Amino acid sequence: MGKTSTGNYFEDFEIGRILRHATPRTVTQGDAAIYTALFGPRFALTSSDEFARSLGLACAPIDNLLAFHIIFGKTVPDISLNAIAILGYADCRFLAPVYPGDTLSATSEIIGLRELSNGKSGVVYVRSAGVNQRHEVVIDYVRWVMVRKRDETAPARPGGVPELPQAVAAQDLVVPSSLNFRGFNCDLSGAPHLWEDYQIGEKINHVDGMTIEEAEHMMAARLYQNTARVHFNQYMQNSSNDARRLVYGGHVISLARALSFNGLANGVKIAAINGGRHVAPCHAGNTVFAWSEILDKAEISGRRDVGALRVRLFATKGQPCTEFPGATETGHHPGVILDLDYWLLMARRAA
Amino acid sequence: MGKTSTGNYFEDFEIGRILRHATPRTVTQGDAAIYTALFGPRFALTSSDEFARSLGLACAPIDNLLAFHIIFGKTVPDISLNAIAILGYADCRFLAPVYPGDTLSATSEIIGLRELSNGKSGVVYVRSAGVNQRHEVVIDYVRWVMVRKRDETAPARPGGVPELPQAVAAQDLVVPSSLNFRGFNCDLSGAPHLWEDYQIGEKINHVDGMTIEEAEHMMAARLYQNTARVHFNQYMQNSSNDARRLVYGGHVISLARALSFNGLANGVKIAAINGGRHVAPCHAGNTVFAWSEILDKAEISGRRDVGALRVRLFATKGQPCTEFPGATETGHHPGVILDLDYWLLMARRAA
Amino acid sequence: MGKTSTGNYFEDFEIGRILRHATPRTVTQGDAAIYTALFGPRFALTSSDEFARSLGLACAPIDNLLAFHIIFGKTVPDISLNAIAILGYADCRFLAPVYPGDTLSATSEIIGLRELSNGKSGVVYVRSAGVNQRHEVVIDYVRWVMVRKRDETAPARPGGVPELPQAVAAQDLVVPSSLNFRGFNCDLSGAPHLWEDYQIGEKINHVDGMTIEEAEHMMAARLYQNTARVHFNQYMQNSSNDARRLVYGGHVISLARALSFNGLANGVKIAAINGGRHVAPCHAGNTVFAWSEILDKAEISGRRDVGALRVRLFATKGQPCTEFPGATETGHHPGVILDLDYWLLMARRAA
Repeated sequence: MGKTSTGNYFEDFEIGRILRHATPRTVTQGDAAIYTALFGPRFALTSSDEFARSLGLACAPIDNLLAFHIIFGKTVPDISLNAIAILGYADCRFLAPVYPGDTLSATSEIIGLRELSNGKSGVVYVRSAGVNQRHEVVIDYVRWVMVRKRDETAPARPGGVPELPQAVAAQDLVVPSSLNFRGFNCDLSGAPHLWEDYQIGEKINHVDGMTIEEAEHMMAARLYQNTARVHFNQYMQNSSNDARRLVYGGHVISLARALSFNGLANGVKIAAINGGRHVAPCHAGNTVFAWSEILDKAEISGRRDVGALRVRLFATKGQPCTEFPGATETGHHPGVILDLDYWLLMARRAA
Repeated sequence: MGKTSTGNYFEDFEIGRILRHATPRTVTQGDAAIYTALFGPRFALTSSDEFARSLGLACAPIDNLLAFHIIFGKTVPDISLNAIAILGYADCRFLAPVYPGDTLSATSEIIGLRELSNGKSGVVYVRSAGVNQRHEVVIDYVRWVMVRKRDETAPARPGGVPELPQAVAAQDLVVPSSLNFRGFNCDLSGAPHLWEDYQIGEKINHVDGMTIEEAEHMMAARLYQNTARVHFNQYMQNSSNDARRLVYGGHVISLARALSFNGLANGVKIAAINGGRHVAPCHAGNTVFAWSEILDKAEISGRRDVGALRVRLFATKGQPCTEFPGATETGHHPGVILDLDYWLLMARRAA
Repeated sequence: MGKTSTGNYFEDFEIGRILRHATPRTVTQGDAAIYTALFGPRFALTSSDEFARSLGLACAPIDNLLAFHIIFGKTVPDISLNAIAILGYADCRFLAPVYPGDTLSATSEIIGLRELSNGKSGVVYVRSAGVNQRHEVVIDYVRWVMVRKRDETAPARPGGVPELPQAVAAQDLVVPSSLNFRGFNCDLSGAPHLWEDYQIGEKINHVDGMTIEEAEHMMAARLYQNTARVHFNQYMQNSSNDARRLVYGGHVISLARALSFNGLANGVKIAAINGGRHVAPCHAGNTVFAWSEILDKAEISGRRDVGALRVRLFATKGQPCTEFPGATETGHHPGVILDLDYWLLMARRAA
């Protein structure tokens, strides 16, 4: 078994250690098409080369979240193969656009460790970066996961918990310089509402629901070369608590994002993810709904053509969002499965 | 909810109104590959760049029906989100070929309205056009759908039912001028039978059957960015009559067309759809079979290399087609789900 | 029914007969992406254009097995539509790389016939070749299948069983001259183990398991334009022994190969398949596991950068491979479904 990787355990991590993850991945129009088939996104920027050109790009970029999932997938064999739970994300920024033909690879740095008091596991904080073939960072984010110890008697490593921002500051949002929203065409994009039309505190029910099948979430996770066993191995899951394969959390993010088109059609690009939690598990057969709350609005420094909306996106299962089920004093409404906080770019009205 | 679209209701439509549908869509080799994976078509023209070049095209075009479904999908949010039923198609012509890299968008004109006597809904007739990035119309067709009224007391709009041809006239069929069947290679295409070999009245059982899965028809509909809720939302469908998600009617058309390869292998291109009806619903788990009847044959004006066959294509569920189950005096054989009338282009024997 | 093909029966075959199979197929990045989504392979050579360039290729080639399945699929309508069983493969060599954009077609020669003593069926031996648009042979292999007779009273044809090699000789393995492993980067490829590190007799448990869904194996088989009815037609299968659709044997090969990344990450290219048997059927719902045994090692003549490993790959269903379930005196361990013998190319350590 010396040649089979069984992944890292808590005691294998060390603060400051850099991991170069395996298998560079050229992202293609084929990947983009499968992403469309799995989630049905309708945002004009990623759907149409012509629309992307009208905003100054060379062609339709790869969906931010597809790129995110691919980078995330690369980190799994080294970071979370023995994870008990993915606890959260923070400080995720989308920097350079990713185009079909770009090759992505990923590295991570261990930035925090905290052994749990039961001595059986610990929390690992990693900052991961996705880099293209020109060595430009395209995505940069932090996540933390609870990882099992291989040997419960192994001594605790020097630990520490990193300081993480509550949210990416608006002035740190990156809008690619080539991306110009001046000619943004609302007839084509699907809705008349621009940045000025959204109010802080506004709630939007995205109405539609989407039922998930096993084949779908497994195809998605394999497309990302994500190897977490809980998604694929029903034989093993038969002895888990709910005896089901678990849907990759990022699948719910992508579904909720696609559903959010109905209400946020002009939010064509995610600029940053401030934080996110998978509040409850999702399984095949669940019907996912979504709603959004506008948390904040920000101007983009030096730009009159585009602004940012800070959005809190909730996804539910088996629970339409007419009543906006969300956070409660003690946690979340029982139907909620995702609580995501992100920055969205949206065209502004011409002055 | 002001920013969420809930679709148009019967009283929102007005004869002469033009709708420009959202989200232009660049069609790629990725889309073509997923189409192959979902239906398994084997027609040489759309399968092989080399074969397409031997007929004068730049490369393999996108399957006619894939382009049709994409254009159809764009019309759904504006036309049929509140549809009770899709009643029929007519006068659909495939004009310019669609190639990977082309960007399609869609517009519709309301050409007829007829309120039903119950006052609860009405029939909307629309002519939709799919246009590429060079502003060439690639597809043009009429469909009519039964749409709910939002307010049953709303007064009836000025109505009218358009006159529609029983079939596209043979002289109106368009064969792209670059497409030349003179070098058509039957060894490669899979059958020796050419236009001359088919007789009016001939019936062909396509033999094979294909069972549909939920993941498949949902991936297809999302690939087309079709948002009709009945295909995706099992939670909502639980309170429908049959408590099942409904398979998009176009899925059955594509399946039946792919099955028809076995008997019509040299019918590599659909030129027009004269009419079509989804006679009964289709659900995941159904096994679809198909058979064809040759209704008519026509020469193409000015062309000796290619002719047209008018074909009536029946699809059934759970019903092999050995006995050619089709129309009856009072409707259709109970197993029939699709009754489609279309024009097929097929190479002729060299003079 | 004269135009519907019902496939060849045993008495239709004749030794020496050459069959040119229908439907040339341009393989695209879309096909490659679907292959990734279905199996999740992580081998760097086929995942990354940049990695492929670092080894001297123009871009990432199509996975050997995807090309194999496409060629195999083309032979089905002529060879195995009436097959009772696929009995084995032999002497399969991967010759020229296949790139996105290449168009593959297939021909077969009947090289052996043996009527079974019951008079109801016989074994057909065929050598099939896959050829690209430059008329280069990319794959060449032999398989034999048991085929039904149409008419049990038909006289036996002159028969004969071809002599087939136990294994492809190491000196007959082809490494494309442009493919140079000197700069092979183990950080990117995912494991430090190179050709020198594997020992004859070594056993590797690939650990992970993958559960198969109906939608997945049918999408795969349709992607290959494989028309064998047992994979698709549940209506027909309802009257079969196990009342289930059968998973295409090649699906199990691809799954096991993808799982084998964990232990054989640097075996980026299959050079030959020596033989293979589908020992037991596989159905949707089965969880597939895999393990490998190193049978032999060979140098590649004239090359110091790359060597070959002869690997015996077992796949199981519902049976983890910790105990290496494999061949027994009387057959195979009951959980085994695939027993495959192949040659793998792997980088050698710099001298």
